Amino acid sequence: VNGAGRPVALVLAYHGAGFAGFQRQPGARTVQGVLERALGDMAGRPVAVRGAGRTDAGVHAAGQVADCRLPDGVRVPTARLPLALGARLPADLAVAEAHDVPPDFHARRSALAKRYRYLIWRRPVPSPFWRQCAWSYAGRLDAPAMAAAAPALVGRRDFSALAGSATPVRSAVRTVLSCTVRAEDPWLAIDVEADGFLYHMVRAIAGTLLEVGRGALRPEDLPAVLCSGRRAAAGPSLPANGLCLLFVRYPASCGLPDPPAPVWPP
Amino acid sequence: VNGAGRPVALVLAYHGAGFAGFQRQPGARTVQGVLERALGDMAGRPVAVRGAGRTDAGVHAAGQVADCRLPDGVRVPTARLPLALGARLPADLAVAEAHDVPPDFHARRSALAKRYRYLIWRRPVPSPFWRQCAWSYAGRLDAPAMAAAAPALVGRRDFSALAGSATPVRSAVRTVLSCTVRAEDPWLAIDVEADGFLYHMVRAIAGTLLEVGRGALRPEDLPAVLCSGRRAAAGPSLPANGLCLLFVRYPASCGLPDPPAPVWPP
Repeated sequence: VNGAGRPVALVLAYHGAGFAGFQRQPGARTVQGVLERALGDMAGRPVAVRGAGRTDAGVHAAGQVADCRLPDGVRVPTARLPLALGARLPADLAVAEAHDVPPDFHARRSALAKRYRYLIWRRPVPSPFWRQCAWSYAGRLDAPAMAAAAPALVGRRDFSALAGSATPVRSAVRTVLSCTVRAEDPWLAIDVEADGFLYHMVRAIAGTLLEVGRGALRPEDLPAVLCSGRRAAAGPSLPANGLCLLFVRYPASCGLPDPPAPVWPP
Repeated sequence: VNGAGRPVALVLAYHGAGFAGFQRQPGARTVQGVLERALGDMAGRPVAVRGAGRTDAGVHAAGQVADCRLPDGVRVPTARLPLALGARLPADLAVAEAHDVPPDFHARRSALAKRYRYLIWRRPVPSPFWRQCAWSYAGRLDAPAMAAAAPALVGRRDFSALAGSATPVRSAVRTVLSCTVRAEDPWLAIDVEADGFLYHMVRAIAGTLLEVGRGALRPEDLPAVLCSGRRAAAGPSLPANGLCLLFVRYPASCGLPDPPAPVWPP
């Protein structure tokens, strides 16, 4: 992504069901791979992109951000990139916005925070419209208890108890800026905004709040679960299809607009 | 649908993109055909269903209603039918509810009213989540003017100006019970409830209100458009993918619950 060319940031929306995650992988259909191919076709030479976060296979995005350098030969004005790229992209991946950014912009490193939403469809029969964009759970859930438990997750702390075991990281300390539960039949949404996320962290937070909703944990148990640092003390990681990267927040100096008011749902 | 057996009503939700409409047709995948096959598999003999309305190819439903007679050999309690049939239905068709109904219940003839929603996505780039469930229109729309025009459609009158030309009908008189326009970025929804609908009537109403939103018609022009009885005086029929049958309303004596508060969106 270094080198010459016009530095631009692209705001991406994608339906995760058809992608093996964001990150380019040989032989797999990924968001990065499909986007780089579209950009390369338009530019007539390879264009590399960097994403703000690596969403897993099956995870959706309403406002993922990726940056790249457009070769000087590309004459399309930045504001026209969404439509110009739209003609080269499949229906499950859209460039919703494009913005000029400073040369030192880095989609991941420049980000202040990212917000994810975990969406639960609370009916016994999955919805034909939502089955791929929400996780179905028809059991009884005490939504007020879940909402009461959520603030315990806010703050700067070690989130080892809520991280997938797969990835060793130097530090599991992250700052959760907000965590809210909103229930409006037939949906329940868990929103988490943080300066960074560990592997499967939102899905583990959602699974832990679900345990509270089911009565298997009490809201007042959460601080001890976090302090234990033990993954087994928390709830399970919920499936990928309920998760969506809502938006990425940047300093105003980056030239990206403020995140939109989250649409409900999804 | 006549004859012996347990009379039940099924509340159906389906994603219209994969169906050639509701009505059974040889060689085509239709909602009726797929549902009758699932019922027949469960019952071990053919089961015919009747729908409250014949949605066109590509049109969705959140609360279509169909009725049938279940042979006496079927031991599944009515309340368990959604899950029992769910195992035999594809992911784009769900039986959301099942209810016992009186022997003279008729999904279409017993209905008091049906409500449809036409959903418009107001962004230049189609959403990967909504592209099949909403029609994209990015032009300027004066939503308050559309909302001001909508009440002119309410009442008992001849709707020839808003009917597809394909189908000759004995009478084009219908009663529109409500017609509302709701705009909430990035959506605009047009809801129409009536005791019956002519061919393409909601799509023509939506297209006519769109002309008001675009400034090509004024709200005060609508009464004259309706009185003219000329299809050409009204706006075009909008595409099927924006249309959804929200619910069907029955007298309390039929044993079906009141329609749910419409979910927003879709």
